[in-house]
Amino acid sequence: MSNTVKIVRFHKTGPAEVLQFDELPLPEPGPGEIRLRVKALGLNRAEIMFRNGQYLETPVHPAKNGYEAAGIIEATGPDVDGSWIGKTVSTVPGTFKLNDHGVYGEVAVVPLHGIAEYPSTLSYEQGASIWMQYLTAYGALIWLGQVAKGDFVVITAASSSVGIAAIEMVKVEGAISIAVTRTAAKKAELLKLGADHVIVTDEEDLVARVNEITLGKGARIVFDPIGGKILESLAASTASKGIIFEYGALAPEPTPYPLFTALAKHLTIRAYTLFELTPDPVFPKAKQYIFDHLALGAFRPIIDKTFPFAEIVEAHRYMESNAQIGKIVVTL
Amino acid sequence: MSNTVKIVRFHKTGPAEVLQFDELPLPEPGPGEIRLRVKALGLNRAEIMFRNGQYLETPVHPAKNGYEAAGIIEATGPDVDGSWIGKTVSTVPGTFKLNDHGVYGEVAVVPLHGIAEYPSTLSYEQGASIWMQYLTAYGALIWLGQVAKGDFVVITAASSSVGIAAIEMVKVEGAISIAVTRTAAKKAELLKLGADHVIVTDEEDLVARVNEITLGKGARIVFDPIGGKILESLAASTASKGIIFEYGALAPEPTPYPLFTALAKHLTIRAYTLFELTPDPVFPKAKQYIFDHLALGAFRPIIDKTFPFAEIVEAHRYMESNAQIGKIVVTL
Repeated sequence: MSNTVKIVRFHKTGPAEVLQFDELPLPEPGPGEIRLRVKALGLNRAEIMFRNGQYLETPVHPAKNGYEAAGIIEATGPDVDGSWIGKTVSTVPGTFKLNDHGVYGEVAVVPLHGIAEYPSTLSYEQGASIWMQYLTAYGALIWLGQVAKGDFVVITAASSSVGIAAIEMVKVEGAISIAVTRTAAKKAELLKLGADHVIVTDEEDLVARVNEITLGKGARIVFDPIGGKILESLAASTASKGIIFEYGALAPEPTPYPLFTALAKHLTIRAYTLFELTPDPVFPKAKQYIFDHLALGAFRPIIDKTFPFAEIVEAHRYMESNAQIGKIVVTL
Repeated sequence: MSNTVKIVRFHKTGPAEVLQFDELPLPEPGPGEIRLRVKALGLNRAEIMFRNGQYLETPVHPAKNGYEAAGIIEATGPDVDGSWIGKTVSTVPGTFKLNDHGVYGEVAVVPLHGIAEYPSTLSYEQGASIWMQYLTAYGALIWLGQVAKGDFVVITAASSSVGIAAIEMVKVEGAISIAVTRTAAKKAELLKLGADHVIVTDEEDLVARVNEITLGKGARIVFDPIGGKILESLAASTASKGIIFEYGALAPEPTPYPLFTALAKHLTIRAYTLFELTPDPVFPKAKQYIFDHLALGAFRPIIDKTFPFAEIVEAHRYMESNAQIGKIVVTL
């Protein structure tokens, strides 16, 4: 066992190739921490934005990166129960900062409260593809949105891992999903994954189609990571007293607030990220809900493509191409 | 008693002078309606927007106008209890459409469910200055916002009748009001009316001052009828997980949605009008709360200026000058 390990860091913000493999001394877990031998990394859009210097958190160089890793605990901090060693867990985004504990590497040191076990039926790749997507969807749809049987839920960026998680969660809750995707390329796959309706915005009018599907009522919940000008169409597609969750900022342009539409329909626009969920008392309940549905097979993390660790730069580029349906995973 | 009456109508949208006095046959109340002999009219910003063709409701010409009248019931519809005759009441905005029941006139025919009694200690002028302002404030601050002791509440357009009502309500609930006004002209009066803090935006930086007042926490509730670019400063002045109520659209420019600020602080932006409150089961409770605080003297409708009925066009122009502090009333 070498006493150095490869950790992916970037020393300046920029395109995928700023990510580099730094050979560093094997880090020891401090109080309240564990060290994970990483087997798989799940990539997140947030990590692209962080690498670009456009994220809520600002990189401190040389910066680590990465929220989601699955692997085996190989060391524990001085005050942490040693019986954790040998257990298979994955890391939970929203419980630590990327600068402090970014997990891209052969090993990752993270706080004990930032890991969770997952059903043993799942592979490492699937284990690294759980928490960002299901917790994000849970917080908006179930915790804050209280989705109920028969509700119409519009899901934009539907083929993202969070989008697919939302489609699964809406089905489990007896509601009706309306998946929104830009091109026809992903339509068949989204239907196969359980979407009740798919709207292809390059070919169809979003507002007219939502109106048609909901018989003029509009959607009670909209779940959108895009922002920008689509917010106007989304507001026009929302039911009276409906709620729009904004959970990302993928659009390059500024976001207009649809004031008149919002006033006429008494709309709520709620900005939400899972950083709000993880410190809340509801967090254990959320984790259990997700664990149970994974164990039952009602939630199945979809892996679009895996890359070997050596190709993490290509994996970032691939995410930026928007070709994927589901999660992009790096394996070690 | 003449069998014709003067009703104010407009036959096209436009500036104040489109309002004209039409001599019409005395209208009879239909089923579920009463006829009010009008003693005072309270003017609302909504009526200016309706006259301009910029309101949520589109005028059907020749269009009536006016939400708030106080007066004496002089006739009842065929199915309405005749004991209402002789009672002093005022009309409640949000319970009828302007096209159907606009109250600008010597008499007004309105639905029975669209009137309410008020404490007999109040004048007709005050009676016409109750429901729009206190119900609007109640719905946002108490019903939806659940304002609590110690909360900081930012109130823009603070010298409007709704703004002053919000200042009073915040005080009654043990919270702390931060009144926002454009020029120093109204500062002293706002403090006299009970504002805990006043920010003059022509002279002070809104965000810096709110930060100073709230010791960096920001306001838990923002109550804003303006929209437009001030929304960005308001979002920057809001506490983490705070809520911004948008209840009007006074700004001429488009309203930007402050996506990054909202995501970083998990903000809610809630568009609200009292049209949401009046059909809700909470409505009787809201009316009772307002009646009780009026009777106690905790709420005191502030009349800025009265105009005789013949000068209703001037009264509209005066409202558009933004010189007032409190309600503009037309007397008959």
